[in-house]
Amino acid sequence: MANWKSKLHEIIYEADTPAGKLFDVILLILILASILLVMLESVNEFATKHGDFLNIAEWVITILFTIEYFARIISIKKPTKYIFSFYGIIDLLSTVPKYLSLFIIGSQSLIALRALRLMRIFRVLKLARYIGESNNIMRALNASKIKIGVFIMFILILCTILGSVMYLIESGQDSGFTSIPRSIYWAIVTLTTVGYGDIAPLTALGQFIASIIMILGYGIIAVPTGIVTAEFANQHSKGGVDLNTQSCPNCAAEKHRNKAEYCYNCGEGLHPEETD
Amino acid sequence: MANWKSKLHEIIYEADTPAGKLFDVILLILILASILLVMLESVNEFATKHGDFLNIAEWVITILFTIEYFARIISIKKPTKYIFSFYGIIDLLSTVPKYLSLFIIGSQSLIALRALRLMRIFRVLKLARYIGESNNIMRALNASKIKIGVFIMFILILCTILGSVMYLIESGQDSGFTSIPRSIYWAIVTLTTVGYGDIAPLTALGQFIASIIMILGYGIIAVPTGIVTAEFANQHSKGGVDLNTQSCPNCAAEKHRNKAEYCYNCGEGLHPEETD
Amino acid sequence: MANWKSKLHEIIYEADTPAGKLFDVILLILILASILLVMLESVNEFATKHGDFLNIAEWVITILFTIEYFARIISIKKPTKYIFSFYGIIDLLSTVPKYLSLFIIGSQSLIALRALRLMRIFRVLKLARYIGESNNIMRALNASKIKIGVFIMFILILCTILGSVMYLIESGQDSGFTSIPRSIYWAIVTLTTVGYGDIAPLTALGQFIASIIMILGYGIIAVPTGIVTAEFANQHSKGGVDLNTQSCPNCAAEKHRNKAEYCYNCGEGLHPEETD
Amino acid sequence: MANWKSKLHEIIYEADTPAGKLFDVILLILILASILLVMLESVNEFATKHGDFLNIAEWVITILFTIEYFARIISIKKPTKYIFSFYGIIDLLSTVPKYLSLFIIGSQSLIALRALRLMRIFRVLKLARYIGESNNIMRALNASKIKIGVFIMFILILCTILGSVMYLIESGQDSGFTSIPRSIYWAIVTLTTVGYGDIAPLTALGQFIASIIMILGYGIIAVPTGIVTAEFANQHSKGGVDLNTQSCPNCAAEKHRNKAEYCYNCGEGLHPEETD
Repeated sequence: MANWKSKLHEIIYEADTPAGKLFDVILLILILASILLVMLESVNEFATKHGDFLNIAEWVITILFTIEYFARIISIKKPTKYIFSFYGIIDLLSTVPKYLSLFIIGSQSLIALRALRLMRIFRVLKLARYIGESNNIMRALNASKIKIGVFIMFILILCTILGSVMYLIESGQDSGFTSIPRSIYWAIVTLTTVGYGDIAPLTALGQFIASIIMILGYGIIAVPTGIVTAEFANQHSKGGVDLNTQSCPNCAAEKHRNKAEYCYNCGEGLHPEETD
Repeated sequence: MANWKSKLHEIIYEADTPAGKLFDVILLILILASILLVMLESVNEFATKHGDFLNIAEWVITILFTIEYFARIISIKKPTKYIFSFYGIIDLLSTVPKYLSLFIIGSQSLIALRALRLMRIFRVLKLARYIGESNNIMRALNASKIKIGVFIMFILILCTILGSVMYLIESGQDSGFTSIPRSIYWAIVTLTTVGYGDIAPLTALGQFIASIIMILGYGIIAVPTGIVTAEFANQHSKGGVDLNTQSCPNCAAEKHRNKAEYCYNCGEGLHPEETD
Repeated sequence: MANWKSKLHEIIYEADTPAGKLFDVILLILILASILLVMLESVNEFATKHGDFLNIAEWVITILFTIEYFARIISIKKPTKYIFSFYGIIDLLSTVPKYLSLFIIGSQSLIALRALRLMRIFRVLKLARYIGESNNIMRALNASKIKIGVFIMFILILCTILGSVMYLIESGQDSGFTSIPRSIYWAIVTLTTVGYGDIAPLTALGQFIASIIMILGYGIIAVPTGIVTAEFANQHSKGGVDLNTQSCPNCAAEKHRNKAEYCYNCGEGLHPEETD
Repeated sequence: MANWKSKLHEIIYEADTPAGKLFDVILLILILASILLVMLESVNEFATKHGDFLNIAEWVITILFTIEYFARIISIKKPTKYIFSFYGIIDLLSTVPKYLSLFIIGSQSLIALRALRLMRIFRVLKLARYIGESNNIMRALNASKIKIGVFIMFILILCTILGSVMYLIESGQDSGFTSIPRSIYWAIVTLTTVGYGDIAPLTALGQFIASIIMILGYGIIAVPTGIVTAEFANQHSKGGVDLNTQSCPNCAAEKHRNKAEYCYNCGEGLHPEETD
């Protein structure tokens, strides 16, 4: 009994064994198929034409997902840990709406939440070396987390102030600045250089301030880019002074400068090195 | 007398003591609440429904801000210094409109200026280590101040020239290039890659020049980014492993790692240091 | 016989000899001319006015291209290798539509595919030192291939999820979110800061989420930029002053400057080198 | 005689003497005033109201510019050198239209070309240290000139190909892809993330390809940024290996590595250094 459970656990939760790998790949294909179905259903012409096929296919996938969900619960030692985990909640949310659609009209559309399951792709990628690269990106982003946080807070305050000012200037016009929240929305649209054009200033003063916001946004983009780039570059050369990987034979201190002949920590002579 | 004044000063102006910290946090919450109120009031549906509530809440906050304003004036030795400071003027501007609204219709909308008080958030943040990161950003921006100034001036001249040229080309069309200032506005919208689309060239020649402006803007964004990034990278590699400015008393080797106790070049003991 | 074939091969396929160079430049001019013709033909006013001239000019170029196509087949030893190569297929696709237009109405417009021949320009550029610079770009992009792949996959998943969520929020409105694929299209338009404005959120919640997407897109652009920049910088500092991989025969010091004839560490003469 | 000429030359052409400096600053103010006048004249409401004032002010400035133009010709030894120089042609073009407007109706609008005179600002800036910073920018851009050239050519070819493909897909629709040049214009608008929205794909396939173009444009912006940033960073650390400013006492070779004790060129021992 415990044996097939442990086997099931290996297949479902692990991705290193051939069986686990196969399971994950099949699961990914099913997820992609289910998302394709949801997409196609939302396209009116297609939904009216092939409604029956879509319905059946969705039921098949929903039942497979249901089986998977219960298999996950059964095979794990502490089911509550999975059920209330991030993926557990997503798995439930992406399965339930189809059943609800039998009773409640409209709940069908919640199936779109299934797109969230796509994030499982990152788990499957753990298989490949991709995760290493993705880790690099994560590490760089992590190292610049606070800087980026300060930056985003600054952007938000700036947009609030600029949005309020633009509301004062443009609210009398027919230019879409109907409320402060909308004006702040416009300021974000402009500062990030998206520029829908659904709201655009009409007065000369409004256009003047908008110009300043644009140039600001155009220049300010240098800040997050600079932060992240410096972090990436830092990880590349880890120091710029070129540290080597030697370890002091006496005190085990690491991260010595290249060409260093003595330990910076205890003064012990370092072995002659053969760095690249 | 002087005692409670100095106590009040400590609470209001300083952010390092627990009382001062608490005061700043409460103030920040009040500012955020007042901004939320201003936002909600500008939304028509909400304003007509909950007009009374908004009015009362705004009066409460306005009176609290008034008390704070006078407390600031009383507790400081040179009140004029505060009154004419940047924050002093903002504090006044964000409190007065509500009182004015009793006499002058329309002045109410100036309350939106209260958003400017949000900048106090940076003062409160002085508490936390965020200021260190924000200082880094500031230092990098400061170091590249002149380069960025030259760049922005170049952009403005370019937009003036291109706007004038586009006015010559497109002014006969029905494409929105009705005056040179508007054309310059369009050139800024285009060069910064915002692209509202409220003004867009219709002639073949206009579209050709617009294409050049776009590619220019797309490429030119590399300049501020390059400037700021190089500055960030520079601070990293200056920092990075954190080299200090000590010189070995024996061999005069420099650029030792911080906390290094022995010269990496000759193994001589370094002087105990007091680096930051 | 084999002689003129080999001569023909040299002219057509090689770009290092004067004859081959001349052939490639003439070919490039013909391609540019043919693209200009296709462009002009698609402009209605011009096509109706100068239809005859366009038709004759296109026939002349098509025949020249046909001759070139057969010359390429004849002069190569393994014609199938050319025919099924990338350029072989493009060459065929850009020649055939004109002939088809004699029989099938509408196939004429496929001539636009001739623009693909423009890619031959990169072959001709092989002549100049441009290829070196272009190689640098390629090497940098190549080195960051996987990182960029992970990044694009992340962007696509993000857009799928955000598009689905926006569909749920905005599908009842008259704002253009008529299906999930369209909503995903909108999410891409917004995240990449293009912002056409043909689809734009109307509900407060939709605009709130859109704002988050924009700030995300505005910040996230730092990631590919950071990746590529770090790679460029890496190639610089590897290159830069151009260090070679020699090792001093006396003291084994490395990272000598290119062309260095003596070791910077011990003054020993270095071996004569044959670096690029 | 020659004396006042040389004096005039000093005032007009040189910017290092107090008189020359004053002249340049006054000239710059006049240029800015004249541009303001041209701008105001293009605004209809203003032009009809203050037409007389504008006309007189423009005549005054035009006459001042005329005097300056002739003074420049007189005071230089080889007048043709100035007349046919870049600035000489601009100076003429910005003065003549006003005179032409007496004879030819409509030529007045050419006065907008006066904006080109703004470029003189860069000459005046030669005074200040700004020119140093601007030189830095120029040097970085210059060093990456070829790389950026290759990049822009690649962008143009890409836009031509993508525009042609989109024309094939969307030309039947009512989406604005009426000709290939317009489609190429759209491709540039999209790839540079400007996104006016005056032309936007309507078919599913068109939107799919547009999405690819956007993601491409969003990612590709990393390339010029990376090139320029690496160049800036390079100028910062001029090598990354840290070169010093020593000159070999024997062979005068420069750009030695920091810490180098022997000349890489002739093997001569270098002086002990005191680099920072």
